[in-house]
Amino acid sequence: MVFTLKDMSFKAGMHMKITAKTKPGCEAFSINIGHDADSIALHFNPRFNAMGDSNVIVCNSNQGGWGAEHREPCFPFQQGEEFKLDINFNNDTFYIELPGGTMMSFPNRFGDDVFKHMHVVGDVKIISLKVK
Amino acid sequence: MVFTLKDMSFKAGMHMKITAKTKPGCEAFSINIGHDADSIALHFNPRFNAMGDSNVIVCNSNQGGWGAEHREPCFPFQQGEEFKLDINFNNDTFYIELPGGTMMSFPNRFGDDVFKHMHVVGDVKIISLKVK
Repeated sequence: MVFTLKDMSFKAGMHMKITAKTKPGCEAFSINIGHDADSIALHFNPRFNAMGDSNVIVCNSNQGGWGAEHREPCFPFQQGEEFKLDINFNNDTFYIELPGGTMMSFPNRFGDDVFKHMHVVGDVKIISLKVK
Repeated sequence: MVFTLKDMSFKAGMHMKITAKTKPGCEAFSINIGHDADSIALHFNPRFNAMGDSNVIVCNSNQGGWGAEHREPCFPFQQGEEFKLDINFNNDTFYIELPGGTMMSFPNRFGDDVFKHMHVVGDVKIISLKVK
């Protein structure tokens, strides 16, 4: 885990803006938003080359076990490059603005309108984070 | 611990800009920069009402034990209020721009020019963080 943010107030309607940089040779990383490290409403997992996948974003949720995977074909990430993400949600859907401006979404299976926990795992460095 | 950032690259000459908000009734919080959770070059610890202190910033370092405390009389923090900090350093000194613009400093007793670990403890929420 390279980054953990606990006890935040990420509420429906707010934006989480993340600037980060993948490491050279990055295989995968994930950004996880939920209630704690095991209760994850949004697992956002770009895979350059991991788990048998290449260049795909896999999203999922975990409430006592992983749910159905959502696979996003758009993959605007490069190894060793800086990127920005903007995550917004309501109690129905997470909206993620990918680098370059393409939007994707993932269902908010928890239906909650506030999340207090966020952690990042993998071959990535966080440069800036803003929740507002 | 409300916030942890591992494997960052906070290098001499860079700025760490933090926007955060103290909780109502905040007694104290600390921002800690170093090599890991136990090796802390800068322990920045505003105390509203804690450890027998009121309205003072206590700074220290920890290398197998706490060093000599540095106490800063300027205390531009309020309970329940948002604030900004800007931390910059070289291998001799940490420079901290306090809310309102007052500068303070604390010796870089480690003498190192890169730190990879940062964690925040106490009655505070991190709103944004940037290392650049």
